Amino acid sequence: MTMLHDDTDSEKKACILATAERLFREIGYLKTTVADIAKTLKMSPANIYRFFDSKKAIHEGVARRLMNEVETEAEAIAAKTTHPAVRLRELLSTVSRMNAERFVGDAKIHEMVAIAMEESWDVCEAHIQRITMAIASVIAEGAKTGVFKVTDIELAALSTCTAMLRFFHPQMIEQCAKKPGPTLDQMIDFILAALTLSASGTIPGSSGAGKVSHV
Amino acid sequence: MTMLHDDTDSEKKACILATAERLFREIGYLKTTVADIAKTLKMSPANIYRFFDSKKAIHEGVARRLMNEVETEAEAIAAKTTHPAVRLRELLSTVSRMNAERFVGDAKIHEMVAIAMEESWDVCEAHIQRITMAIASVIAEGAKTGVFKVTDIELAALSTCTAMLRFFHPQMIEQCAKKPGPTLDQMIDFILAALTLSASGTIPGSSGAGKVSHV
Repeated sequence: MTMLHDDTDSEKKACILATAERLFREIGYLKTTVADIAKTLKMSPANIYRFFDSKKAIHEGVARRLMNEVETEAEAIAAKTTHPAVRLRELLSTVSRMNAERFVGDAKIHEMVAIAMEESWDVCEAHIQRITMAIASVIAEGAKTGVFKVTDIELAALSTCTAMLRFFHPQMIEQCAKKPGPTLDQMIDFILAALTLSASGTIPGSSGAGKVSHV
Repeated sequence: MTMLHDDTDSEKKACILATAERLFREIGYLKTTVADIAKTLKMSPANIYRFFDSKKAIHEGVARRLMNEVETEAEAIAAKTTHPAVRLRELLSTVSRMNAERFVGDAKIHEMVAIAMEESWDVCEAHIQRITMAIASVIAEGAKTGVFKVTDIELAALSTCTAMLRFFHPQMIEQCAKKPGPTLDQMIDFILAALTLSASGTIPGSSGAGKVSHV
C-alpha cells in the first residue's frame, strides 16, 4: 500500500479532499464511504482519519474548498480599481457564474449542497458572510466617492445579496433557470439603481425602518 | 352513507378540497389516499372521482385555492387608491405574510409545496404571473404619476418579484427565517429605491441590457 510518504500533510489533505469531491460527484455523498476514498488513494482508512475526524469533516472540507475558490475570486475583484459600479457588476456576475458551475447540476450535486446546508450551516454562513463583505467593500468605496448614495453599508450589502438570491443560491439557480424573470444583467441594473438613488426620504412608502438611509 | 345530496356540485368540490387540504396537512400528501378523503366526507371514492380525475387533480385544486386567496388579496390591494409606494409596500408585505402562513411549516407542508413545484409547475407559474401582474399594475400607476421612474413595467415587476424571493418563496422563507439579512421592510425600501431612481444612464456600470430603462 502506497502511503504517499513523500507528501506533506497539507498535500495529503488536499489529495483526500480532491478525491472525496470526485467520488461525491460520481457516486453521491451518501453512498461514498471513507473506505472508498481510502481505497482510491491507496491509503488506509486509519490514515484518512488522521486528517479528518469523520466523513462529515471531509464533506465540510470539500465544501469549504469549493466556496473558498469563489471567495478568493470575489475578493480579487473587490480589490480592483475599476469604477465601483462596474466592479460590483463583475463581482455579482462572477459569484453567480462560479456558484452555478460548482453547486448546480445533477442529483448527486444537489445531495452534496442540501447536506451542506442542513448539516454544516456554519460553513455556508461563513461563506455568505465573506461574499457579503467583498460586496460591502465595493459599495463602501462607491459611497465614499459619491457613486452610491448609501449610508448603512452593511445593510446595503445584505440587501444586494438578498436581491441576488435567484442568481446566488444553488437551489434557486437550478429552480429558476428556465423561469420568467430578469436576466442576470437586468437584475444587477435593478440593484445598481437601488444603490444609486440620490433622494432620501422622498419615497412616501419609506418604512422608516430607516436603516436603508439613502442620503 | 350520506351523499350530501343537498349540496350543489361546486359546494361538493369545495368540501372535497377543504377536507383534502386538512388531511394533507395532518397526514401528509403522500400518505393520504382518495379513499381517506372519501371516508372522512362519508362519500364513495367513485363520487370523488366524479369531480377530480386523480389525487394529483385534488392536490392541484388545493394548491390553486390557497394561491387564489393570496392573488385575490394582492389584487384588492393593487386596486386601492393609496400612494403607489405605500400600496406596493402593502402588497409585497401581504404576499410575504400570506405565503408564510399558507406554505411554510412542518415537513408535511414542505411535502405539499415541493410536490406542487415539481409536479404542477404550471399552477405555480400561473400564480406567480398573477402576483407579478398585480405588482406591475401598481408600478405602472406609479410610473404614470412620476413616483417611479421606470419605462419597462413588466421587467420592473419581474425584478421586484425576484428581489423578494427570500420573502415570497416558501422554501426561502423557511430557510432564511433566522439568517442574517434585511428585514421585510428594509428589503422593500431597497426595492422602492430601485424603482425611484430618477437618473438614467448615469450609472457607469449599467449593462446596456437596457430594458431597465430608468428615464
